[in-house]
Amino acid sequence: MKMLSSLARCVSGTSMGFLRTLRAAGKPSAPCLGQQTLAAASQPTLGPSPGVRRAQTLDRERLLQVEWDDGSSSLFPFTWLRDNCQCPLCTLQSAQARSLLLSDLDVHTGVEKVRLMESNKVSIVWPDQHSSEFEPDWLKKRCFSAAARHARQEELFLNEREYWDAGLKIPTANFEEVLHDDKAALAWLLALRRMGIAYLKGAPLEQGQVARLSKRIGYLRLTFYGHTWQVQDKPMANNVAYTSGNLSLHTDYPALQHPPGVQFLHCLTQASEGGESVVVDGFHMAELLRKEDPEAFGTLSTLRVDFTDMGADYCDFWVQSKHRIIDVDAEGRVVRINYNNATRDSTLDLPLHQVQSFYTSLKAYVDLMNRPENVVTYRMEPGDLVTFDNWRLLHGRRSYVSHEDRLRHLEGAYLDWDEVMSRLRILRKAVQGES
Amino acid sequence: MKMLSSLARCVSGTSMGFLRTLRAAGKPSAPCLGQQTLAAASQPTLGPSPGVRRAQTLDRERLLQVEWDDGSSSLFPFTWLRDNCQCPLCTLQSAQARSLLLSDLDVHTGVEKVRLMESNKVSIVWPDQHSSEFEPDWLKKRCFSAAARHARQEELFLNEREYWDAGLKIPTANFEEVLHDDKAALAWLLALRRMGIAYLKGAPLEQGQVARLSKRIGYLRLTFYGHTWQVQDKPMANNVAYTSGNLSLHTDYPALQHPPGVQFLHCLTQASEGGESVVVDGFHMAELLRKEDPEAFGTLSTLRVDFTDMGADYCDFWVQSKHRIIDVDAEGRVVRINYNNATRDSTLDLPLHQVQSFYTSLKAYVDLMNRPENVVTYRMEPGDLVTFDNWRLLHGRRSYVSHEDRLRHLEGAYLDWDEVMSRLRILRKAVQGES
Repeated sequence: MKMLSSLARCVSGTSMGFLRTLRAAGKPSAPCLGQQTLAAASQPTLGPSPGVRRAQTLDRERLLQVEWDDGSSSLFPFTWLRDNCQCPLCTLQSAQARSLLLSDLDVHTGVEKVRLMESNKVSIVWPDQHSSEFEPDWLKKRCFSAAARHARQEELFLNEREYWDAGLKIPTANFEEVLHDDKAALAWLLALRRMGIAYLKGAPLEQGQVARLSKRIGYLRLTFYGHTWQVQDKPMANNVAYTSGNLSLHTDYPALQHPPGVQFLHCLTQASEGGESVVVDGFHMAELLRKEDPEAFGTLSTLRVDFTDMGADYCDFWVQSKHRIIDVDAEGRVVRINYNNATRDSTLDLPLHQVQSFYTSLKAYVDLMNRPENVVTYRMEPGDLVTFDNWRLLHGRRSYVSHEDRLRHLEGAYLDWDEVMSRLRILRKAVQGES
Repeated sequence: MKMLSSLARCVSGTSMGFLRTLRAAGKPSAPCLGQQTLAAASQPTLGPSPGVRRAQTLDRERLLQVEWDDGSSSLFPFTWLRDNCQCPLCTLQSAQARSLLLSDLDVHTGVEKVRLMESNKVSIVWPDQHSSEFEPDWLKKRCFSAAARHARQEELFLNEREYWDAGLKIPTANFEEVLHDDKAALAWLLALRRMGIAYLKGAPLEQGQVARLSKRIGYLRLTFYGHTWQVQDKPMANNVAYTSGNLSLHTDYPALQHPPGVQFLHCLTQASEGGESVVVDGFHMAELLRKEDPEAFGTLSTLRVDFTDMGADYCDFWVQSKHRIIDVDAEGRVVRINYNNATRDSTLDLPLHQVQSFYTSLKAYVDLMNRPENVVTYRMEPGDLVTFDNWRLLHGRRSYVSHEDRLRHLEGAYLDWDEVMSRLRILRKAVQGES
């Protein structure tokens, strides 16, 4: 947690509100103050696994029971063990991938012999004399208990979020440090993951910085707006962002089936008047809506709405999609917000009797987002670079006065969460070691 | 439909089976023979819209009723009409995007006056004296009746699929024609969309052809395996595909949250022995499973399974995902298959009592796929290029004998369905005109 302390918190919201930490499962925990924002951004670390005291088969249930040194025990199905034999015949070591074919797997296999080796590995001999060996650590991590599975999933996906309102102090780091120091880069990505937004200061005043930053992760995502894109007031704008007008709170590119997960915006020139940035925590707003107006939440998390985008930029395009504005998973947890009023299609694929309730619900959500106590306003200065979760945050911009001789200019780029999470896992392992 | 006749069907399956046409909704229609495969690959065309006979408001219901010349009528909610005013204040014409803010929309608006203009447009004056005009064609397309909505969605997304088994004659076109002729390109993409696979012959025998073909659409999708990737027997392979071993039926890259929608594979050198390609229609297999073993279908379309991939290629990576192997939408329609036995994670996030039913269900699905009557086998020759739907098809490869002096070599690339569908819509409009 030490490496987090080098981050300042210098971009402040309009008022001091309270922050709530919510687990992905929606369980509220104690409120914490803005100054503690990043302290909570580390991931759970699992201690070293205990050794194996005893390993035995429960043959009728076709389970292996492993008793650990600390007195706890784990159960592993025979089928799963055989499926995951780590020997060079069953696993392609260089790719860490399964080479055992499913057609060669006996899903009703028994076990001929189990023994605990001197190395504390568990050895299994199968009825066909094939044998497998399992490291205690490897087994313990993959225990099927609810607690172990939850810890493992949290370790892999870091799904804990800290919700915020206008009181947010946006976590802030130094651009060059993030580029060159693994600890700074890890702290940046952990904050981006948990808070949904992280600010970098001190980027050079020239184009190409969002691309440099994306290479720190892996690669950026190309879209019809180009590898990177220039947010400026343009004649014949093919996007409402390319005007000087007010941009109401939105997520970018819901017209794609898989909207970009992360957005980078680098300020090269700011307007002399106007152009302030605004953001809200879309997940937090969705949870407030669920509480205040469950019917509206139900409507927006059920009905699928059409989005469209056509024009020409990197090349000509005509994309279409259908999304729920509040996307929830099978357990009802909010996982993505898809909303951009500009590209919401005039085609509305709903039966007539659902149209009014759709509009009323959407208005309720938008009104909630626009309440001053929920909106964070900040003004980007040249050299500032904001990175945010485009699946979670809604962002907007106040209108500005456009001067031909000093055009407001932001450069932007997209990445997907897969690539960002991949770098996060690799950095965490490099900085903190294997957990 | 004429432009489809120039396509040959020269890659044949191992046996003659029957083909079924299924609507996305799962309604079976009359079977049709392999030779008719492409005849059915066109999209529904809507005739010119009738004029408006009368337009009147139903004020209590806050609906506009439009009576068409053909005697039919449509209803449009006031709110929706106001929301979709096409005037230059409410719509940014250059982007064809909504500039009207939701906070400025009265979702309970009335209407002051409606009249039918000489041009047959419907004119509405709103209580605040703002006025809107709507083209009859524009309105008719957006009618809220179930039939009109279905037609519109089919026009936008072309979701009709034709299911197949070993009897498939893979639709085949000429590589250079597809590159240079819009009609040939349209026929190719329509076949790819409907059948899930289309073959191109006559590609030059050098690398770079999958990239050239992707530019015909827009751009390819970069992944951790690079912009394009070379399928060859490699030392220290970071993927089981980069060996000479048998590859069982799989979809590519389920370790990504949004696996690539379309795959291109170009054959540069074939093995002298072995290396045949195999494909099955994963949607068809899923529907067969739903019929033969509803419990297995229920399990695979409900449980989320972990996938993982780590290594180094374009850069170092460690990706993780959770997917249902048979992905269904809210209506229960199969929309994607996510299955690769090599990257299925040893971490299995299921309670113990669901593990055995997961393995039994997966085995049932795999056994069904492997039945000879379901598998299409073909052998790629140098210059052949196969394009297929990676969300629908499972593909594999027989093992081959690897010769150091003549390495089997395929070059591959990925695209997303968003970009492919975008090009399909644009080509259709160019070739067939506005429907």
